[in-house]
Amino acid sequence: MAIITLTTDFGLKDHFVGALKGTIYRELADATIVDISHQVSPFNIQECAYILENSYKSFPDGTIHIVGVDSEPTPENQHIAVLVDGHYFISANNGVISLITSEKQPEKVVQVNIPNPIHGSFPVMDVFVQVACHIARGGTLEVVGRPFNQLRELREFTPTVTDNGNKIIGSVIYIDNYGNVVTNIHKNFFEAYRKGRSFEIQARSTKVSRIHNKYSDIINFELDKSQRKGAGDLLALFNSASYIELAIYKSDLNTVGGASTLLGLDYRDTVTISFD
Amino acid sequence: MAIITLTTDFGLKDHFVGALKGTIYRELADATIVDISHQVSPFNIQECAYILENSYKSFPDGTIHIVGVDSEPTPENQHIAVLVDGHYFISANNGVISLITSEKQPEKVVQVNIPNPIHGSFPVMDVFVQVACHIARGGTLEVVGRPFNQLRELREFTPTVTDNGNKIIGSVIYIDNYGNVVTNIHKNFFEAYRKGRSFEIQARSTKVSRIHNKYSDIINFELDKSQRKGAGDLLALFNSASYIELAIYKSDLNTVGGASTLLGLDYRDTVTISFD
Amino acid sequence: MAIITLTTDFGLKDHFVGALKGTIYRELADATIVDISHQVSPFNIQECAYILENSYKSFPDGTIHIVGVDSEPTPENQHIAVLVDGHYFISANNGVISLITSEKQPEKVVQVNIPNPIHGSFPVMDVFVQVACHIARGGTLEVVGRPFNQLRELREFTPTVTDNGNKIIGSVIYIDNYGNVVTNIHKNFFEAYRKGRSFEIQARSTKVSRIHNKYSDIINFELDKSQRKGAGDLLALFNSASYIELAIYKSDLNTVGGASTLLGLDYRDTVTISFD
Repeated sequence: MAIITLTTDFGLKDHFVGALKGTIYRELADATIVDISHQVSPFNIQECAYILENSYKSFPDGTIHIVGVDSEPTPENQHIAVLVDGHYFISANNGVISLITSEKQPEKVVQVNIPNPIHGSFPVMDVFVQVACHIARGGTLEVVGRPFNQLRELREFTPTVTDNGNKIIGSVIYIDNYGNVVTNIHKNFFEAYRKGRSFEIQARSTKVSRIHNKYSDIINFELDKSQRKGAGDLLALFNSASYIELAIYKSDLNTVGGASTLLGLDYRDTVTISFD
Repeated sequence: MAIITLTTDFGLKDHFVGALKGTIYRELADATIVDISHQVSPFNIQECAYILENSYKSFPDGTIHIVGVDSEPTPENQHIAVLVDGHYFISANNGVISLITSEKQPEKVVQVNIPNPIHGSFPVMDVFVQVACHIARGGTLEVVGRPFNQLRELREFTPTVTDNGNKIIGSVIYIDNYGNVVTNIHKNFFEAYRKGRSFEIQARSTKVSRIHNKYSDIINFELDKSQRKGAGDLLALFNSASYIELAIYKSDLNTVGGASTLLGLDYRDTVTISFD
Repeated sequence: MAIITLTTDFGLKDHFVGALKGTIYRELADATIVDISHQVSPFNIQECAYILENSYKSFPDGTIHIVGVDSEPTPENQHIAVLVDGHYFISANNGVISLITSEKQPEKVVQVNIPNPIHGSFPVMDVFVQVACHIARGGTLEVVGRPFNQLRELREFTPTVTDNGNKIIGSVIYIDNYGNVVTNIHKNFFEAYRKGRSFEIQARSTKVSRIHNKYSDIINFELDKSQRKGAGDLLALFNSASYIELAIYKSDLNTVGGASTLLGLDYRDTVTISFD
């Protein structure tokens, strides 16, 4: 039986997530339902896209991903179902899967068109679940929709390159649970322009000229503890999603604060990389 | 195997929810456990009742709902198990299922009476799980309790009608993840008194004279985007639970704020509907 | 199929938990995955240890517990897998299982040593899941690691005894969802020194001379409601984890506040018990 994942901005307090799961189990008693996140900031497409891109790949091929952010259908926000990279996504056409479809050509895209749809304020339960269960039972996208070729893109995720390829201008797209600041500069993008040169990352007054692969790389364990870098120190990292991240080692938002507050960086703030 | 749902005020940080699930799996290795909510405000019976009423119906008949809010047994807060509308509820007799039992006549109500109960501070794990597993294995309520006929009711959920049926005085019973304000005025109640008349909803200084069926209904998509209503605009809605809700379109609590803060409405504040 | 539990400081918003679960399901389609907590305060070993100790025991023997707090491997923070009390724990050697291993002698402890490990910033997904799935398939610890005998201990959990056994000096180790304050003084420890004597618990200016077994024990239900103790009153309790807890009856952090704020008690503050 296929896995059905849920990524929404419903939060975990209200009845929405419970009602959604009940509806799925009523259709598919053996379903495996997995919460990816219900804490997407309300209507925040960028956050949702980042979370989705970095979790879907871990799941087996054939997994069905329901995306419940900004999902009321309107003439400009169609309900779509997409097969891309071996995974199914059911969503509104608001850009949430554009990080995925910008890298992988979708195999199929349909505008959802089920008979006798309920036109209410909870389309994730009324419509998306029906589509998901149809797919889980082995049904095809053609049965629940008609071909569609107007997938919305999100521009916020693409850094710009200036100064004859000597400068990348990116921005903050995500702040994680530790307050660490994730930029829209992917490792592949960075390396394509770097071409082996040295560089400097600047974000407000912060400057860094090295990018690590794990957080503890900044610590020299041959030094005595009193001499070492450690909790509270800044580093740049290719994070586990391969984006450049500005982090505070062992940051605790409840005490010292995270990179976001310490560096004064918020969503959409600029992060610049200059190559020598 | 029956589904067991959990609705509690335990929060998601502490060990309570994990301990509860472990105990269930130890009894029933094949259990399907579903979290409805663990974020009920501590001891808030009204919130719990609203969440429960609007999620239980989505689950298949025979589902067993454990309700862990204010569950220490006292002479005035008996442990009960109820079969109503095809679903089982295990709870303290504090009113949490009164929204359900006010609409549907319970088929069976028992006061829980299991042999050798543990008298500790975690009765949801020590008592409710035992009862739930008994039911999941096909056992009857009679075996775990004796007939009981003093189900507690919650008055907060019933609006009053004044002025010869020309005015409904309701109140705020829930504020959702988007800050939208849910009243205790159900669509059926409203329509029964409306009898086709025009009306005005008033909550503090806010006045609305139309109720929509989905959030985006306030937008006229034939207008140019600059001319339209949109994010930040107020509307009244029959929400997906069929209660009248005052909402801000695409409200984000982190930025513009939700209906609750923008309209200055909190739990128990009055919402009035006047018919012409 | 064995149960795999997750206890982390990842939070529930980011993609980490979803990615982790996807990876497990890709390896073990029939896995039963249970969230114990993802809300451990970042890098807070004490909190994690308390949550883990008080939830693991509820699960069936053979359960595999993945602990994702402070899990980057360093020369001083080895990856370990431990079999203790019939349960498997996969963790970094940072003390998170020391509450368990201080009471029960571990049957096996290995330092994880899998072929071709990924040296990234997400070892819980890259390493711990591999080890967990190996165990779930019936594999032994010897295959994924080499014997290890340097398990780290946490001193914060042990109260001290002074004044010829007439005084216990403990501290606050956990504050729960209700704001109740949990001390590191276990019932067994307390009773061993109490020897039937009367006593006084002091925490800042608060003094209590009785310890209850459940919250509602402070209420005399024979009195009229206006005469009784009730919501907002202080009590000491052997909580469901058997630690001494200072609690406010029916505390609601959103309104009256919990014991932590009302008594001015925070993590690591001192709680003293004097015997007559």
